[in-house]
Amino acid sequence: MSISSSGPRWDALWRNVHLATLAEHDGYGEIRAAAIAVKDGRIAWLGEETDLPAGASADVEHDGGGAWLTPGLIDCHSHIVYAGNRSDEFEDRLNGVPYEAIAQRGGGILSTVRATRAADEEQLFAASRTRVDAMLAEGVTTLEIKSGYGLTLDSERRMLTVARNIGERLPVRVRTSFLGAHALPPEFAGRADDYVTALADHWLPTLAAEGLVDAVDAFCEKIAFSPAQTSRLFDVAHQLGLPVKLHAEQLSDQGGAALVAGFKGLSADHLEYLSDSGIAAMREAGTVAVLLPGAFYFLRETKLPPIAQLRDAGVPIALATDSNPGTSPLTSPLLTMNMACTLFRLTPQEALAGFTRHAATALGLGGELGTLEVGKIADFALWDIDRPADLAYTMGLNPCRQVVNAGIARAPH
Amino acid sequence: MSISSSGPRWDALWRNVHLATLAEHDGYGEIRAAAIAVKDGRIAWLGEETDLPAGASADVEHDGGGAWLTPGLIDCHSHIVYAGNRSDEFEDRLNGVPYEAIAQRGGGILSTVRATRAADEEQLFAASRTRVDAMLAEGVTTLEIKSGYGLTLDSERRMLTVARNIGERLPVRVRTSFLGAHALPPEFAGRADDYVTALADHWLPTLAAEGLVDAVDAFCEKIAFSPAQTSRLFDVAHQLGLPVKLHAEQLSDQGGAALVAGFKGLSADHLEYLSDSGIAAMREAGTVAVLLPGAFYFLRETKLPPIAQLRDAGVPIALATDSNPGTSPLTSPLLTMNMACTLFRLTPQEALAGFTRHAATALGLGGELGTLEVGKIADFALWDIDRPADLAYTMGLNPCRQVVNAGIARAPH
Ligand SMILES: [Zn+2]
Ligand SMILES: [Zn+2]
Repeated sequence: MSISSSGPRWDALWRNVHLATLAEHDGYGEIRAAAIAVKDGRIAWLGEETDLPAGASADVEHDGGGAWLTPGLIDCHSHIVYAGNRSDEFEDRLNGVPYEAIAQRGGGILSTVRATRAADEEQLFAASRTRVDAMLAEGVTTLEIKSGYGLTLDSERRMLTVARNIGERLPVRVRTSFLGAHALPPEFAGRADDYVTALADHWLPTLAAEGLVDAVDAFCEKIAFSPAQTSRLFDVAHQLGLPVKLHAEQLSDQGGAALVAGFKGLSADHLEYLSDSGIAAMREAGTVAVLLPGAFYFLRETKLPPIAQLRDAGVPIALATDSNPGTSPLTSPLLTMNMACTLFRLTPQEALAGFTRHAATALGLGGELGTLEVGKIADFALWDIDRPADLAYTMGLNPCRQVVNAGIARAPH
Repeated sequence: MSISSSGPRWDALWRNVHLATLAEHDGYGEIRAAAIAVKDGRIAWLGEETDLPAGASADVEHDGGGAWLTPGLIDCHSHIVYAGNRSDEFEDRLNGVPYEAIAQRGGGILSTVRATRAADEEQLFAASRTRVDAMLAEGVTTLEIKSGYGLTLDSERRMLTVARNIGERLPVRVRTSFLGAHALPPEFAGRADDYVTALADHWLPTLAAEGLVDAVDAFCEKIAFSPAQTSRLFDVAHQLGLPVKLHAEQLSDQGGAALVAGFKGLSADHLEYLSDSGIAAMREAGTVAVLLPGAFYFLRETKLPPIAQLRDAGVPIALATDSNPGTSPLTSPLLTMNMACTLFRLTPQEALAGFTRHAATALGLGGELGTLEVGKIADFALWDIDRPADLAYTMGLNPCRQVVNAGIARAPH
C-alpha cells in the first residue's frame, strides 16, 4: 500500500483476475482476486486487488471477469515452418502400405524437404501461418522455430527468414534454432562427415553472421548424426557464442544428453532413453529436459522418459509440441499438456510449468519470461477456467479469452 | 444436363468445392471440382460443376474457394450436458491421491450427479453450451445427448429438457437418450432392482410421454447394471416404441452386444471386450459398433476393440467423443478421428465415415443424414484442407470454414 498522495501511474492494469505466477519451482503460485499492472511492456506490480497501492492509476484498465491469468505459453521446440503435407503417408500407412514402399517413392522427411525447397518465402510463410495461428489462439506468446527441412544453405536461410518474419508480422516472440543437422540431404548421401563440415565451416557461420540463428540444434541418433559429428558442430556454435540444444535419446541412448550438457546446453529434448548419467550431467549443467509427448503418442512409443528420476534430480522439465509433419502434426499446447499428464503422468501443475517457467529457461529466457514477477516482460494468457488444472484436463476445448504481448492485449481468435 | 429452356431453381448452390459424399460403404466418394444444390433444406443436385444443368439458378450462390465439403459431423454418443468440473480429481490422481480417498470424499460420478442436481435449467444450459460450441466449431451438425447424471426423475427430466433446448437454441440437431441406468443413485444404494423398477415402470414411461426421449440407453457392466436389469428396461422401451442402444463390453464381456442386438438395437458402444458371438449378433441385427477412443486414451486402456473382426463382418463402425467429465473430457470430433487412427488403426476414411455415414445409422437417421445424396437433409461442413485424410491427421488444428444446417450457412466460430 503506497502512502504517497499520488500513486504509481501504469500503462495498463488487469483487475478481477486470479494469477498463477509459477514464480516458485513448485506449485502454481496462486494469487486469487488479484490485479497485475504493466509499465513499458514489463510487469510493474502484482498482488491481491485489495492491496493495490493507494492512488494507483493506469491508462487502460481491463476487467478480467474472474479469469485466470498465467504467463503466456512458450513452445520451446517446434518445426512449424515447412511446406507440403504428409497426410497421404499417414493414410497410406494405415492402409497397410509398407514403410519401404513409401520411402521408395520419395516419402518421409525428404518429401517435406522437397516441398520446402520448392516454396518461396511467401508460400512458406502462408503454409506455416495456419499452424502458428492455432498456437496463438491457445495463448502462445513465444515460439521456438527450427530450420532443418531445407538442407541447402539457401533453403535453410529461407526457413530461418520465414521464422523471423513470423515474429515480425504476427504477435509472437520467435527464437530460431539452426537444425541443419536434422537429416542428411540427398546431395550428401554417403558423405555425412562432408555434410557436417559444410554446416560447421560454412553454413552455420554464414547464417549466424546474418543474424538468423539464436541457437544451434542437432538430431543425435543412429539414423541421423553421431555424437562426434554433433560435437564438431557444437564446437563451432561455441566459438560463435551461440547456445546449443539437442534432439537426444529419442530412439536409443547415444549419450546425447551428457554431450549437450557438456556444452552447458540449454536443453536436451525427447529423452525416452535417457540414462542416469545423462540426468546427472544435465543437473550439473542446468540443462532443461524438454519432453515431447505428441511425438510419443503419434509414434505409439511405449518407452517412457525417466520422469521420476528427472523430478528427483530437480532437473527442470519443459514441454513442447514438437510440431512437425512426420512425427507430431500437433499445434495445440493444451493438448500437449493433456498428453503429458495422461501418457507421462505429469501433474497439471508440472504441465503448465513446462509451457511457461521451464520453457523460458529452455530458451535461455528465464530471466525475462515464463513467470509473473515484477520486472519480467508482460506476456500473459487469460483463461475462462475454474482452476489451472482445467488447462491440462480438457481435450479440444480452448478457454483462452485474451492474450497479452508485452502489455498489449489482443483477442486470441 | 437439363435440356429445358428454364433450368431448375434452387435455394442455394455451393460451387468450387470438392465433395466427399461417403455415399458408398467404402471410400470417400470423392467428386472433385464439384457443386451441390439445396432446395427446401435438402440436397437437390450434386455433381461435377461442369455438369450443372443448363439454366440452373439459385437464390444464394456460395463460392467454396476450393474447400472440401463433407456431410456435417454427427456425434452419436455424448454425455455433454452436466454441471460441475472434475479437473480436481484428475489433478489429485496425478498427485498420487488413491482412488478410494477420492471416492470417500464424494468424488467420481456422484460429484457430477450432485452438481447436476443442484443446477437449474439455465445453469445447466450455460455449463453445457461452452462444450457444445466447441463441437459446432468443428463441423458438428447432429449431436446425441444422454441423461444419466441426474438419477432422479426431476433431474433426469431437466437434463433431457436442456438437451432439447440446445437443439432449439443452437444450430444443431439433437437426439436424446434416456440413460437413467447409468449409475445407481445413493437413494437406491443396495437396491438396484428397485431402481430399475422405478426406471422401467415410472420414469421412462413418464419422460417418453413428455416427448423427451428419442432412445433408451444403459450401462451394462459388473460395476453398473446386469444384463437381466438391462433387458427389463429394454422391454419397456420396446413397448413404448423407442429404439435402444447400450454401453457394452467396455470393461468385461457381459454379452451386452448380443443383448442389444436381440432388441434390434441401434448401436452397441465401447466394445473393447466384444466377443465373436457378439459381432455375429450385431451383424445379424444391423446394430452399429460405436467406438470411443477418447475414453480408451484417457483411461490408458490397452485392450483394443476387435476392429479387424468388425471390418470382416461388415459391421458398420461409428466413432463418437463420449464427451463426459469422468472418462473422456473431450469435445473435439477431429481429435477423436486422430485417436481412432493412431490408437485403433482405423483409416482416415473409416474415421470420417464413423462421424458421418455410420454415425447417422447409429442414431436411426441413416435415411436422412450422414452422406451427400440427393434427397437427404443438407447438413454440410466445409474444410480448408488438401484432402479428406487431413481431418484425421492433424492434431489441434480446426480447418472448418463453414457449417451448413439444412441448407442454412453459418460461420463455424
Ligand atoms: Zn524435434
Ligand atoms: Zn458413454
